[in-house]
Amino acid sequence: MRWVRVETENGPSYGIIDGDIVSLVKNCLFDDIEFTGENINLDSAKLMVPLVPKTFYAAGLNYAQHVIEQAKANNREPNIPNEPHIGYRATNALIAHGEPIIKPKDASDEFQYEGELVVVIGKRGKNLSEDEALDIVFGYSIGNDVSERKWQREDRTMWRAKNTDTFKPMGPWIETEVELNNLLTTVRVNDREVISFQTNNMIFGVQKFISAMSKYLTLIPGDMIWMGTEGHSKNLSPGDVCDISISGIGTLSNPVVAGV
Amino acid sequence: MRWVRVETENGPSYGIIDGDIVSLVKNCLFDDIEFTGENINLDSAKLMVPLVPKTFYAAGLNYAQHVIEQAKANNREPNIPNEPHIGYRATNALIAHGEPIIKPKDASDEFQYEGELVVVIGKRGKNLSEDEALDIVFGYSIGNDVSERKWQREDRTMWRAKNTDTFKPMGPWIETEVELNNLLTTVRVNDREVISFQTNNMIFGVQKFISAMSKYLTLIPGDMIWMGTEGHSKNLSPGDVCDISISGIGTLSNPVVAGV
Repeated sequence: MRWVRVETENGPSYGIIDGDIVSLVKNCLFDDIEFTGENINLDSAKLMVPLVPKTFYAAGLNYAQHVIEQAKANNREPNIPNEPHIGYRATNALIAHGEPIIKPKDASDEFQYEGELVVVIGKRGKNLSEDEALDIVFGYSIGNDVSERKWQREDRTMWRAKNTDTFKPMGPWIETEVELNNLLTTVRVNDREVISFQTNNMIFGVQKFISAMSKYLTLIPGDMIWMGTEGHSKNLSPGDVCDISISGIGTLSNPVVAGV
Repeated sequence: MRWVRVETENGPSYGIIDGDIVSLVKNCLFDDIEFTGENINLDSAKLMVPLVPKTFYAAGLNYAQHVIEQAKANNREPNIPNEPHIGYRATNALIAHGEPIIKPKDASDEFQYEGELVVVIGKRGKNLSEDEALDIVFGYSIGNDVSERKWQREDRTMWRAKNTDTFKPMGPWIETEVELNNLLTTVRVNDREVISFQTNNMIFGVQKFISAMSKYLTLIPGDMIWMGTEGHSKNLSPGDVCDISISGIGTLSNPVVAGV
């Protein structure tokens, strides 16, 4: 099932996609479905960020080639993580499918996409085994963990390198029926493929991360986890359009514009 | 004005404190005040975390002596930050005044308090000057940024060192009338004072942080910023009670218990 959040005359509403039609529902995610009876066309719907999370978790370094390439770019030895240590991103930076990524005036040329699988938590969980971990997952979406590498290298935290307003495109929707091992992530810039990788080829998979996190923290409905990206990203410039596709989920597309 | 969040038969409610009385209100923080007409005694009220934040910001290293002492404890040269780079904490870890801080079984002895000023944002703000920064502040509270130093040194992120469940006591309430330069923070463990410092003796003050942050990110009502702590903390053990007082705001008190 595919959940979308759309702007309506009465404010934000969730809906369920069937073909080209969005059937609006009264409830939020995670509740029993109650249709309003109103249907709109997906093509004309104004899509919103599909979830404003309770806590916005991010795995960071979670694909081997990305760790190696990032280390090379920074003249460091690669340091493959041996434990799943989760990080954080911030909701101010979220934008929806189609909305512009604004490159700040003072950002360097090293302004880059990162195509990521997004895990949406739908149930409360603590002390979960890896076998139990997927029981609390509601569905999956697509994220673009836009990063300014100079700030990422030089700042004490990743606050502006990764969390400047508009740096976190997410969407277009949340898909509940996903077979993790079948997913392929493909990133295209201006319709040219720049990377393609097996989505589930992570250093620590979704089950491992959820189980490890839940040993120390309680996950709750509305939390989400971005699972990291693969490879070395190329630079984005104003005028570019960045598309991130995950097979079985969809395509998240955002133009890049210059900040004023 | 002093805002408190209390548990009632009908769920969480905000109230305004006048002496020993809490007058319940229909609204949340930031809205026009509308009293329900119901009053309860502060002494018998079950206090809740006064705010579940939209984004939970934390200044981290923001007092000179703390930076020096932390570096000494880790056999490093102190590195006083020259820019206000904000970090993050997570809401799962929040507990209210009076609730127990649970020391995990596998935590080391280096399990420590950090007494901090909490800034609650009440208005939307972007690109604010330092002179404008306090215009978006709703009020102030007290936080205990409980930290497990071994995990803080060894993990790739501060996820469990600072964000394990119960590691973020906050409260007891939010005070809107505060003169930042008059504040004194005092930490007591089992009624013995362990540190006392001028709250506003920060490397980067509240105005500086808000102004710098707002150059890149939009602050919104319900965000909060923990401003860091001073000095070197001592270890907490199960059975201890940790009190953090900030003059003009109040005292946040939490017992420490052993995890099972």
